[in-house]
Amino acid sequence: MILSALLTSVGINLGLCFLFFTLYSILRKQPGNATVYGPRLIQEGKSRRSNGFNLDRLLPTAGWVKRALDPTNDEILSNLGLDALVLTRVFVLSIRVFSFASVVGIFILLPVNYMGTEFQEFFDLPNKSLDSFSIYNVNDGSNKLWIHFCAIYIFTAVVCSLLYNEHKYISLRRIAHLYESKPRPQEFTVLVSGVPIVSGNSISETVESFFREYHSSTYLSHVVVHRTDKLKVLMNDAEKLYKKLTRVKSGSITRQDSKRDGFLGMFGKSVDAVGHYQKKLDKLEDDMRLKQSLLAGEEVPAAFVSFKTRHGAAIASNIQQGIDPTQWLTETAPEPQDVHWPFFTASFVRRWISNVVVFVAFVALLILYIVPVVLVQGLANLHQLETWFPFLKNILNMKYVSQVITGYLPSLIFQLFLLIVPPIMILLSSMQGYVSHSQIEKSACIKLLVFTIWSSFFANVLSGSALYRVNVFLEPKNIPRVLAAAVPAQASFFISYVVTTGWTGLSSEIIRLVPLLWSFVTNLFCNEDDKEFEVPSTPFYVEIPRILFFGLLGTTYFFLSPLILPFILVYYCLGYVIYRNQLLNVYAAKYETGGKFWPIVHSSTIFSLVLMHIIAVGLFGLKELPVASYLTIPLPILTLLFSIYCQRRFLPNFRSYPTECLVNKDKADAREQNMSEFFSKLVVAYRDPALSASQYSRDISP
Amino acid sequence: MILSALLTSVGINLGLCFLFFTLYSILRKQPGNATVYGPRLIQEGKSRRSNGFNLDRLLPTAGWVKRALDPTNDEILSNLGLDALVLTRVFVLSIRVFSFASVVGIFILLPVNYMGTEFQEFFDLPNKSLDSFSIYNVNDGSNKLWIHFCAIYIFTAVVCSLLYNEHKYISLRRIAHLYESKPRPQEFTVLVSGVPIVSGNSISETVESFFREYHSSTYLSHVVVHRTDKLKVLMNDAEKLYKKLTRVKSGSITRQDSKRDGFLGMFGKSVDAVGHYQKKLDKLEDDMRLKQSLLAGEEVPAAFVSFKTRHGAAIASNIQQGIDPTQWLTETAPEPQDVHWPFFTASFVRRWISNVVVFVAFVALLILYIVPVVLVQGLANLHQLETWFPFLKNILNMKYVSQVITGYLPSLIFQLFLLIVPPIMILLSSMQGYVSHSQIEKSACIKLLVFTIWSSFFANVLSGSALYRVNVFLEPKNIPRVLAAAVPAQASFFISYVVTTGWTGLSSEIIRLVPLLWSFVTNLFCNEDDKEFEVPSTPFYVEIPRILFFGLLGTTYFFLSPLILPFILVYYCLGYVIYRNQLLNVYAAKYETGGKFWPIVHSSTIFSLVLMHIIAVGLFGLKELPVASYLTIPLPILTLLFSIYCQRRFLPNFRSYPTECLVNKDKADAREQNMSEFFSKLVVAYRDPALSASQYSRDISP
Repeated sequence: MILSALLTSVGINLGLCFLFFTLYSILRKQPGNATVYGPRLIQEGKSRRSNGFNLDRLLPTAGWVKRALDPTNDEILSNLGLDALVLTRVFVLSIRVFSFASVVGIFILLPVNYMGTEFQEFFDLPNKSLDSFSIYNVNDGSNKLWIHFCAIYIFTAVVCSLLYNEHKYISLRRIAHLYESKPRPQEFTVLVSGVPIVSGNSISETVESFFREYHSSTYLSHVVVHRTDKLKVLMNDAEKLYKKLTRVKSGSITRQDSKRDGFLGMFGKSVDAVGHYQKKLDKLEDDMRLKQSLLAGEEVPAAFVSFKTRHGAAIASNIQQGIDPTQWLTETAPEPQDVHWPFFTASFVRRWISNVVVFVAFVALLILYIVPVVLVQGLANLHQLETWFPFLKNILNMKYVSQVITGYLPSLIFQLFLLIVPPIMILLSSMQGYVSHSQIEKSACIKLLVFTIWSSFFANVLSGSALYRVNVFLEPKNIPRVLAAAVPAQASFFISYVVTTGWTGLSSEIIRLVPLLWSFVTNLFCNEDDKEFEVPSTPFYVEIPRILFFGLLGTTYFFLSPLILPFILVYYCLGYVIYRNQLLNVYAAKYETGGKFWPIVHSSTIFSLVLMHIIAVGLFGLKELPVASYLTIPLPILTLLFSIYCQRRFLPNFRSYPTECLVNKDKADAREQNMSEFFSKLVVAYRDPALSASQYSRDISP
Repeated sequence: MILSALLTSVGINLGLCFLFFTLYSILRKQPGNATVYGPRLIQEGKSRRSNGFNLDRLLPTAGWVKRALDPTNDEILSNLGLDALVLTRVFVLSIRVFSFASVVGIFILLPVNYMGTEFQEFFDLPNKSLDSFSIYNVNDGSNKLWIHFCAIYIFTAVVCSLLYNEHKYISLRRIAHLYESKPRPQEFTVLVSGVPIVSGNSISETVESFFREYHSSTYLSHVVVHRTDKLKVLMNDAEKLYKKLTRVKSGSITRQDSKRDGFLGMFGKSVDAVGHYQKKLDKLEDDMRLKQSLLAGEEVPAAFVSFKTRHGAAIASNIQQGIDPTQWLTETAPEPQDVHWPFFTASFVRRWISNVVVFVAFVALLILYIVPVVLVQGLANLHQLETWFPFLKNILNMKYVSQVITGYLPSLIFQLFLLIVPPIMILLSSMQGYVSHSQIEKSACIKLLVFTIWSSFFANVLSGSALYRVNVFLEPKNIPRVLAAAVPAQASFFISYVVTTGWTGLSSEIIRLVPLLWSFVTNLFCNEDDKEFEVPSTPFYVEIPRILFFGLLGTTYFFLSPLILPFILVYYCLGYVIYRNQLLNVYAAKYETGGKFWPIVHSSTIFSLVLMHIIAVGLFGLKELPVASYLTIPLPILTLLFSIYCQRRFLPNFRSYPTECLVNKDKADAREQNMSEFFSKLVVAYRDPALSASQYSRDISP
């Protein structure tokens, strides 16, 4: 790729981005799109659906940018929660890192690279290959490589210190968040699994007697988990019917609106709608009550045990309870709405085995992913295709068709393939026996990150003979050399990747094309009130790996090809505005993980640094500067030591809260809050929604 | 090596063993040797020093064997503690494993190996090479190798199930030990380090206010640690003087025995001995009191905090206390006599850095150990020596000299080198910042085990071109193949290693040559009462790696060269008797680790199994049976999964006691024990002995 081609591509994509932003600033002002661009605001009742027309509605404005940047960190923390804060801090950290990297890269490394071999004519700049700006251009054994060497050391030190400060900031914010929040059920509750079966006693009795015996001063109540999968299907039906019935009663579907009960509602005698739905609901409820009475006995050996103080709950969840470590397993309870009910039936051994199985499946997926890569590379290699399907020869020889196939088709297939990966990861994680949606998402986030790095970085870098080269990882000694040879060669690919996939991704994030079209279609074909309106949940587990991947690219190419850095900086700056905007207007967190995504960010950053160091070791070797190669070896070790130190220093605070906070907060609560009211709510907070479903009939009966 | 040579060696060594045992059975009955062979009994007052002569004293008897085998596990547990039980159970486990292995090896694998190539003449048996009994003798690609394959699978299953049961047994015994024992200070106490410095408050005040605030219901008292290294030197002097003074007073050195205070006690005016020592002691005590008053201010930011219940202490030690995870670090306190005082000054960061430094030093030691190996191999290779020192040529050409040099000198150098390793390991471990001797010993035990396996197994196996072959570990793919080629070649070396080093080691263990000679010398030159008599502490950390190493040999050679198995079985049977005898008569545990050596035994056994599997994978490959090679690969994975399961199932119980036990025991104590009396002892239990040293003068002053 030559410089002018890159600049053209950058220009086009930047133009597209601003076009999309302009479009967004207009579209978001149309009242019909309020559910697309401001569902969170509507839910909070902050948005007014004004239908009045004014000229301002058609003019692009940048007010949304200002509004997105306005809230302080404290406001974000109190309004959007800790997870949202973590997401914005990822951008802040990345902007800081790549601002520094860009300055060093563009003003020091780039000139050094460009002057690498000889004095170059500046007139010919647009036709220069991008390789002239990469470390490839520096002569073997040249002393100029020591500049790169120093840059790597300084960059690592800067990243580590920024990371340390960020880690400290978020860890303190987490504590502050606890102090500021009102009492929440999950802080007082512990999930106990592996309750031993005592003959003659129900699970409930066993749990009660155990905690009354061993936590006599703090035990409050408990709720045993029941097997309710079948009930849940019935319940969903009932909920839908109930909603419809409320609408009928409230008059949005007129009472007189008759309904025929024959085929497709077209034949048969017409019946009163209310009576019709009421009858159906009654029947469903009878079913449910029957099932409920049957299920009452079907207890699962797990229970939510609530305590009178946070400290009491922490004691129960931090110390092994029973003599057999596979029984009386305790863990901090998730938020009530975050509980993932289906997996409670699993025993310790089954959970453990399914963990192993999922791990194997995940590794298999990583390996099998090579197959589509090879197939797609076959597409890019047209001769292969011609030998398979000779009749295509004429078509394939047409310039336009061949360009489409080699240029767009592979990346399209990749994108489609990547679309199905997040649900697969969620599926895998949900099989691991996590008891909450947030844990599942966190686990899926890690899997997705590994998968992204593997599929987008390593599979690309080692492509061509992908299956063959994977062998490299069995011979650790050769890894630096192979990576050093393969990674710089892909520099121009990744620069255009950032410019296209990265920037376009941001545009599509803000424009929300699919919900926009969907809203358009429903506006056309349905009446106003039938539209099911739901605030989307923040897709942390999809977004964080994507965002981190660009950090990995920037870090590894920092000294190889510094030309990539400004583009990544632009990505993070745009992303900062856009994601803040989306968090403020669109998404609403369904549950809070308490900043548990942050350790993933930390690990990913450290991994990127170490990967860069490994490539540097290999590259200095290839460039015949063995001293620099050896002198780089301490760097990954120091980085890993730094990481271990950080984990010891900060990670415990992400796992659980310290005694100091818990006791202080408990005492403050006892002074300030009406705890008896909270306790009465706490007692029923973890009741399985499926078992308290008969509320509908009570609500509705006149 | 041929069979007859092996049998000769076995015969000689077995004869030597029985000679030593006979000698022992006579020597132990001599009253003069009571302090050598029964110090523990003397300390407990069970031994009578009868000086009357009878014939029985000169006859060898086997009564000691019966007495060693008599006590049940429960008796061992209650009299000798859990660690002693663990040591005997290691032998029990090994005897079971190698009984099974011997049966399979001798009756199935050995005949298969022997009949490997062709029908062999049995007449020529004594002159057969040992290789005829090893897997080498089986033809490449022969289907007989499937018998080995099955044997490996069955052996692994048997070892795992035995290990599981043993794990379970010891873990239950640990709990039972808690229930049976009286209240011990360490169960109620937590060591707090990293106490933050609050300006205006002393450490003691900070600790008190923190625990009064956050553990108000269970906090009892605390003792701040002081910097007392210099004081300790003075104290040791004082202790010696005090002992002497008591002896003088009690009359064993007669009061009239005058002492001249001039040169060597020969000139000058004679003084009263009591007055002389008393004056010295007084002066020392003045010094100490001065130092003590100076030190009172020099507090170290660490304290022993005692609680009213075990559960209270467990809560404090299991949950992070302060907001900063590097402050208010809590851990279970060691026994009062087990505390290693010097390292308390270290902060979190310094402890952590010294850990890293020690790790690096340990790895360096492992690598540097290659140097003496190469040197010693140079000795074995006489031509090398001749070219270095030409004048030695004539001497070296003498058959006897060359035999001594090539045969005994290398192993002598090795043995001497190995003697200095345990102190080095203890030194390294004590630099890691452990706060108790038992933790230091446990850590040294792990280091010694790794060192033993590395130096005695890998360095031997990969010898010849040791430094060059170490490269193998950088290419994991080649490991099985290299090991499979190198390990079986050393079979006859390791068989004679078991017979000589193993069996001889046991003999020297029971005969206690050095203490015997020492006692003989002191008997000759000193009078009765001057003899300092001390019960030796059980050297778990030296013995356990040695014992486990033979298990590793047996496991890896199980299918390669089953001839080794009966010798290892004999080793373990003899060892079982001897170590029980030593534990009962000689050693006394100074402190109890609570069975924490057991997880090391577990890991070592699993490592041996996996090593065997890796060798099997390589060997089946070399023997041109690739299917068997691939089918062996799941075995190490399954074994590791089993190990992880075991660790999850049992290890938590080795780290800390569960709530159930603690609360039960607390309640039982409240009913049965006089707790207020215990508490008054507890308050002073962790006072630094250096700070309460002025007791001597009080005791002595008339």
